[in-house]
Amino acid sequence: MNLILLEDSDLRAPQRAQISGARFEHVRDVLRAAPGDCIKVGLLNGKRGSGVITGLAQDHLELDIQCDQPPPPKLPLTLILALPRPKAARRLCRAIAELGVQKLILLNSYRVEKSYWQSPLFEADKLRGYFIEGLQQAGDTVLPELQIEQRFKPFVEDRLPQMTRHTRALVAHPYGDGAAPSMETTATVLAVGPEGGFIPYEIEKLQAAGMEAISLGERILKVETAVPTLIAKLFA
Amino acid sequence: MNLILLEDSDLRAPQRAQISGARFEHVRDVLRAAPGDCIKVGLLNGKRGSGVITGLAQDHLELDIQCDQPPPPKLPLTLILALPRPKAARRLCRAIAELGVQKLILLNSYRVEKSYWQSPLFEADKLRGYFIEGLQQAGDTVLPELQIEQRFKPFVEDRLPQMTRHTRALVAHPYGDGAAPSMETTATVLAVGPEGGFIPYEIEKLQAAGMEAISLGERILKVETAVPTLIAKLFA
Repeated sequence: MNLILLEDSDLRAPQRAQISGARFEHVRDVLRAAPGDCIKVGLLNGKRGSGVITGLAQDHLELDIQCDQPPPPKLPLTLILALPRPKAARRLCRAIAELGVQKLILLNSYRVEKSYWQSPLFEADKLRGYFIEGLQQAGDTVLPELQIEQRFKPFVEDRLPQMTRHTRALVAHPYGDGAAPSMETTATVLAVGPEGGFIPYEIEKLQAAGMEAISLGERILKVETAVPTLIAKLFA
Repeated sequence: MNLILLEDSDLRAPQRAQISGARFEHVRDVLRAAPGDCIKVGLLNGKRGSGVITGLAQDHLELDIQCDQPPPPKLPLTLILALPRPKAARRLCRAIAELGVQKLILLNSYRVEKSYWQSPLFEADKLRGYFIEGLQQAGDTVLPELQIEQRFKPFVEDRLPQMTRHTRALVAHPYGDGAAPSMETTATVLAVGPEGGFIPYEIEKLQAAGMEAISLGERILKVETAVPTLIAKLFA
């Protein structure tokens, strides 16, 4: 945690917060902060700044906070990701928030195992928790938007074409033609398939919706490696 | 696994292999291959090609193999990595092999917890196993070189200066001056600190050994996210 995120429920007054649980333990045990010490804090979906510890009890601490700095800018990126293995969900969502992705769309695909959709690891408050871990790592405050699309075809046929109309729209595909282009500030929609990739039917549908297929080269990367790699190449 | 790696001990004759264990189960249960089917194989540290299944028993299978294609080229990159948390070791080593890093040096640093060095997850055969997972994912056959440096100062003072003499040498440092430069084919030495970063003394020593400090920008990434991101930016 490089920044402690505060939620509305943590605020006792506009400039006074009280925290307990994992964040409290982090401040006490990892930062080893004492009353009078100053730590980095941020308001969820708001500004960031610093907090002075005014009280340290057995299970909570109190802070006087001052938040007047904007969070780091987001990447202008909508990431469309085939629902990952539940085991990879936490790491991926954390990395997505760390890297500053603006919006995440979790999409069904032929090679996504149906049982994944039932995993408790994909419940909304779990995903929110992974995002918050990533924000606290990166010093950001703003949650990525999240959209869940359990049906491939209606999303790709009815909603995706509007999203791709005024932006660069790419689908990562090991056998795609283009190399990943670089574009620091271009609004981008990027789709990443499941382990094993989108099937040809899906690639065709995505291309029909305005997405260009790109490849990371000869090596086939795991989704967890491919996502940071693609984002780094696109916003180099 | 996008390629099944074969070791000398798997070979029954120059073009005949027998495999059991996890690779056998992968072929049977994930690829659902049957006798007569052709799968991608590679010889560890050698060429890659294909194998035709000639026999499928309860706990092993037999292959007629033909390997005449070279593996994908490595990145001309030596990655110097502060010993990571043991929990992150497998994922990181797998990603390092996936991405084609030529050589990995695991280095001590002030912020590396001493207990990490005792972890069984860092035993040589464990690390080799993680690398093999990454190679099989990426379709590569050649193990990254591995070097262990348990003492920071003798390595950085005595051995690192020779390594940086004729190459670009960079240390990832959140407060470094330069942005990550792009250099597709430049031989590179890259150092990445532990969670929390190298301490100022270490940064000074690394700079004295010829390393330039670079930053990924305002966001502070976890090592697992920073490594693929740095590699993607350096070899974009």
